[in-house]
Formats: sequence, C-alpha cells, structure tokens
Amino acid sequence: MTTVTEYSDHIVIDRHAQDVLFRQARTANAFTSEPVTDEQVQALYDLVKWAPTSFNQQPLRVVLVRSAEARERLGTMMIDNNRAKTLAAPLTAILAADTEFHRHLPTQFPVFPQAKDVLFGDPTVREESALLNATLQIAYFIIGVRALGLAAGPMSGFDSAAVTKEFFPDGTARALVVVNLGRPADGARWDRLDRLGYEQVFTTA
Amino acid sequence: MTTVTEYSDHIVIDRHAQDVLFRQARTANAFTSEPVTDEQVQALYDLVKWAPTSFNQQPLRVVLVRSAEARERLGTMMIDNNRAKTLAAPLTAILAADTEFHRHLPTQFPVFPQAKDVLFGDPTVREESALLNATLQIAYFIIGVRALGLAAGPMSGFDSAAVTKEFFPDGTARALVVVNLGRPADGARWDRLDRLGYEQVFTTA
Repeated sequence: MTTVTEYSDHIVIDRHAQDVLFRQARTANAFTSEPVTDEQVQALYDLVKWAPTSFNQQPLRVVLVRSAEARERLGTMMIDNNRAKTLAAPLTAILAADTEFHRHLPTQFPVFPQAKDVLFGDPTVREESALLNATLQIAYFIIGVRALGLAAGPMSGFDSAAVTKEFFPDGTARALVVVNLGRPADGARWDRLDRLGYEQVFTTA
Repeated sequence: MTTVTEYSDHIVIDRHAQDVLFRQARTANAFTSEPVTDEQVQALYDLVKWAPTSFNQQPLRVVLVRSAEARERLGTMMIDNNRAKTLAAPLTAILAADTEFHRHLPTQFPVFPQAKDVLFGDPTVREESALLNATLQIAYFIIGVRALGLAAGPMSGFDSAAVTKEFFPDGTARALVVVNLGRPADGARWDRLDRLGYEQVFTTA
C-alpha cells in the first residue's frame, strides 16, 4: 500500500487541515446513515465559493437529490458499478455547468460588464469556458465536502445526456460529475493508490 | 466591497486554513521578487497529488517557466492584459492535460489494469476524460499554491495552440491554464467580487 508523503515546512496550513483535505482524505464508496443537512451544504458553499474562476464566472449548478423518487430516477442513469452506492448514499449531488453563466457577469464582474457579450457572446467559446470553470468549481466542491469532515464519492460513470435532460430540463446546463457525500462507513475505502512522481509531471523550461 | 461570509461550525479545518485557502486568499496580479523554489513546488505537489480523479488517472502535466528565454517566448503568446504580469512574476507554470495519460493506468489503477484499453482506448473518450480530470487537478494546484502561503494568478487568456506547440512539442498534451505564482505585492489584489447566492446555484430534487 502506498504511503503518504512527509509533511513539509513549506506548507502553511496545519497538519490536521492537510490530513482532512488531502493526506488522509479518501474517496468513499459506502456511508453511514447520518444525514447531510442543507445547513452543511450551505457552509460548504460559503467556504469554497471564494475560490477563483475566469472573470469570476460561476457556471457550477448543483441539484441535491433528496427525494426517494428522484434518487430512483438517478439510479437508472448510473452505470452498474455506481448504482447501488448512489441509491444508498445519505446525499447525492449532481454537478453541472451552466452554459448561460454569462447572464450573471454584469453583477459578478462589474469592472467589465461588457464581458457578457464581448467575451462570451459566442456559444462555442462560452461552452468551453463553462466546462473549464465548472470543473474547477467541482474540484473546489470536493475539497469542501472534505472540509465538512465528510467523504465524497465523485463519479463520472453515468448517462450524462439522460441526467442533464431529467435534472436540468431548461436546456442550459450539462451534468458533469455526480458526487455521493456523507460520513464514510467502516471499510468504505480501497487501498491508497500510487501517484505519479514529481518528475513524471513537472518539467522546467 | 463584498464581505466574506461568516465562519461555520460545520467546517472542521481551522480558521487559519479556511482563510489561507479560501476566505482571505486572493488572485494576485503582481508579486514581490521573492523566488519560488523547486522545493516549494514539490511540497505543493506532494500535498495536492492525493486529491481524487476518475480511475486515479493523472493527466496534469506542468512546465515551470524559469529561463528568461522561455519566459519571453511565453510572453508573446499571452493576451495583452496578461503579458506584463507574466513576464514579471517570480514563477510561471503552464498547466496542461496529457491525452495519453492512459499509459500510466496499469501502475496507477492496478485493480483494473485493462482500463487503459477497455475504457480509454477511444481517443475521443480519452481526451474528454483528460480535460475533465486535468482541470480538477488544476483547481487542486491552485489550492496548493495557497497552501504554500503564496498567491496564484491563474489565466486562461493566451494562445493555447501556440503554447501547446511550443512547450509540449511531443503532441500529446494540451495547455489549459497558465498560473503565475509568488508572494503577492502590496496592492496586487482587486476588490473582492460578489458571488452567486446559494439559491442561485443549488436546487433540490
């Protein structure tokens, strides 16, 4: 089993925060029955919403799947390996990119209100930007789940077109990742997998 | 100027970590001359490499632009507003997605070594997955810069095709984001911009 790297004095957040967010945090595949409340999700959002995106665009849209009926519908759209754990999770969030995010730019980026049309009037440019920035926000969301002391189980294995049509019916969003969240059950984690070495990822020019 | 939201007891990392990573952290547009060392970047990577991706794929590739000559070349490929600050930053990193990431899956996801070909043999599927997961890793990288006590200045305004060709000449990666990093100079931050309300982002099904 891969061992976690040593703490470094270059990191200025304390070891507990490093452990909770990165070093000891793990994807979970099963959870206890403890509920995840709207207040917890709001606290998550009030923390991670400050992380940066291009031109302060905020394309992330989230559906919290709470009703038994909605959960059943989502279950039919997950690939086999993701179905049972999604049906059993205390809370499941569908994370999507709003391709009409530019509507909010005049209030969210008031220093250049023309950005809405000048930079993002073209639908192809806008969609590419929505996907990039919503995906950054999905990563911030996953970190936020961990900041709640909970575990996330992010999944990309589902019928994205079907989930989009069912849960974002107005046609302006695209489902990207589904995340189960809650308190991890005993034995809900696999062995820690290896990571690429620094030299495999970084080069210098 | 927008005020930062209140601390919440639902968040289990301490206030200093919340401030450093999210609440007080800010994108910087100018930096002091204090260098950013390879040891710091390695400490960053050794922290954030543990964050999750699909099938433990790790498509992120990074070029650290250190030589004056490479910096000049990169400068010519940045849009006007990003050029001067990039030329002046103590360190600039080009973050890219490796679309041949699947080569590493047999060692990085040994529980299903066939994933390399069964799931990611198709170039279109592979590229989509590379973009999604490298972008998650870019967000983790930005959080990692902040965990060093430094500020990041992420930019998507550059000639991606030219940067890709120049800095990833083997043709298997695609430049997505350029990040300046260092100790922020006084006055290097704009006013805090607003964020969408919880009700504008989250709905319940």
